[in-house]
Amino acid sequence: MSITSKEVRLKSRPVGLPVADNFEIAQVQLPAPGAGEVQVKNLWMTVDPYMRGRMMDRESYVPPFQIGEALQGGAIGEVVASEDANFKAGDLVSSMFGWREAFNAPGGALQKLDTHGLPPQTFLGVAGMPGLTAYVGLIKIAALKPGDVVFVSAAAGAVGSVVCQIAKIKGHTVIGSAGGPEKAAFLKEIGVDHVIDYKVEKDLTAALAKAAPKGIDVYFENVGGEHLDAALAVANPFARFALCGMISQYNVTEAPKGPSNIMLAVGKSLRLEGFIVSNHFDMLPQYVAELSGWIQSGQFKWKETVETGIENAPAAFLKLFSGENMGKMLVKLA
Amino acid sequence: MSITSKEVRLKSRPVGLPVADNFEIAQVQLPAPGAGEVQVKNLWMTVDPYMRGRMMDRESYVPPFQIGEALQGGAIGEVVASEDANFKAGDLVSSMFGWREAFNAPGGALQKLDTHGLPPQTFLGVAGMPGLTAYVGLIKIAALKPGDVVFVSAAAGAVGSVVCQIAKIKGHTVIGSAGGPEKAAFLKEIGVDHVIDYKVEKDLTAALAKAAPKGIDVYFENVGGEHLDAALAVANPFARFALCGMISQYNVTEAPKGPSNIMLAVGKSLRLEGFIVSNHFDMLPQYVAELSGWIQSGQFKWKETVETGIENAPAAFLKLFSGENMGKMLVKLA
Repeated sequence: MSITSKEVRLKSRPVGLPVADNFEIAQVQLPAPGAGEVQVKNLWMTVDPYMRGRMMDRESYVPPFQIGEALQGGAIGEVVASEDANFKAGDLVSSMFGWREAFNAPGGALQKLDTHGLPPQTFLGVAGMPGLTAYVGLIKIAALKPGDVVFVSAAAGAVGSVVCQIAKIKGHTVIGSAGGPEKAAFLKEIGVDHVIDYKVEKDLTAALAKAAPKGIDVYFENVGGEHLDAALAVANPFARFALCGMISQYNVTEAPKGPSNIMLAVGKSLRLEGFIVSNHFDMLPQYVAELSGWIQSGQFKWKETVETGIENAPAAFLKLFSGENMGKMLVKLA
Repeated sequence: MSITSKEVRLKSRPVGLPVADNFEIAQVQLPAPGAGEVQVKNLWMTVDPYMRGRMMDRESYVPPFQIGEALQGGAIGEVVASEDANFKAGDLVSSMFGWREAFNAPGGALQKLDTHGLPPQTFLGVAGMPGLTAYVGLIKIAALKPGDVVFVSAAAGAVGSVVCQIAKIKGHTVIGSAGGPEKAAFLKEIGVDHVIDYKVEKDLTAALAKAAPKGIDVYFENVGGEHLDAALAVANPFARFALCGMISQYNVTEAPKGPSNIMLAVGKSLRLEGFIVSNHFDMLPQYVAELSGWIQSGQFKWKETVETGIENAPAAFLKLFSGENMGKMLVKLA
């Protein structure tokens, strides 16, 4: 059937911190699905920091969003009509057609979702890309090994809070950095050993050195800037840094200040390695198997920050940069 | 027998660029060697950039030099008297008792040197620590693989010129950066494909992008600063950076400017890894075996820059930072 759908389009490319006016809401009419197509009504969509990069017109590992077109991103939806024999009305599906209420797409662009009893939106969070990102970064890129002291920045975020918990479940000392008392309390709740509230610390390096008197062996990097300087300063010889993101740098308009102490990487034999989760999807089965066990045993907790309605999707995205989310930031669409 | 020896002592810790007055020459009287000791007259000593770090009073992977004491470093000498049955007069030995004309030491602190027909001083250069550093960084740390385009900074130096040649012998495209026409000519002579004279290039990133239109896959880092920025900018996805040294940063007195584009390491999945050759001495037999073949086949060339006399050792060291050496900087002592 023909239905209407509202979608979020990129109206203009942000310069510096994105603002509401960089986005516009448009309404489109979706025809009934054609042969081989499926019509999907989205239930949940995700907003993630990496999307900021796609709003710039530059070469990157994912192509830039185009002005006047709907944005893209992860979404969980329900099939309402299908002309593909593999899907039927009522099926839950995951797709990259977020930022819109509904869409038509070829069946091949969708993945049927078996929730295994979990809330569907967790597949945009702990059981989805952010969770796998945490797992890949910690286990494969940072090559976590027994006895490592682990430092995590943006530790209360969608990725960071999973990193903290995996490291704690595996028996490590974990130091988490986050901004504000509410996040600090959440980190304590999930077992983080030492919480650094970077908003109150004047000297991040001193705070980290105090929290990690024996140094750090692994740094899970989500923030960049002063956090990277502090991690370099306090790193033990042969420490590994998994470079997942540098959110403090995404909106700068001048050349960002690089880590002035990068030279320490030579003398300490440090390894700094960037990664993109999409190059490591082969680790998903292993992660899901471990995660299921942790969830069933009650060892694993997660938080969501939820905005409601497609009109509020841009605001939800902007809140990632003001640090207003705890755990996964989601938009509930239906 | 008792002999006199002149040695170079650290008179004061350099602030910024070292100057002649940071050093002093002293004369000592060496008694005849005691039981188990060997008396050695040095023929050659090395000066290396890493020694700058040891002149600072800080924790590092090697302890700092002490004021008023003789400096230390690699040397090749000849035994003049021995009270250790394993050594006899006339033996060539390598030791860490550089910066002095002669010394007494326990036999256990010396290594007997079989030159295999090479000039003895090459064991302070291509056949010694700088050569092994090049090999370890390129083969193990950067994990050189077929088809890699290799960028080398300080490419005409003791380490860099070996990196360039190993990469060329193994069939790679090599881009080398060095300062001045004489070094550029040397790099051409050893087969470097594209030479960047950083002293004449206003925009190092543009110069590198032009020299490497398909990007770089390996960066052998000896310089830091703008060189690191350029390598990050021009790196291909999954490029590996072997961080060997950052000589441009050794004498800065303010906080150095870090790489402002370090964030590219995330999106491009780059790996930056520092290393210290002394953690990789297990690769020496493999390196020596390969090197012997290259030298015998005439594929391998090296240059030395030689100062003469212990009194000129500080000047030789200072020339490392003004870039006046080509290939290995050595001091001939006898």
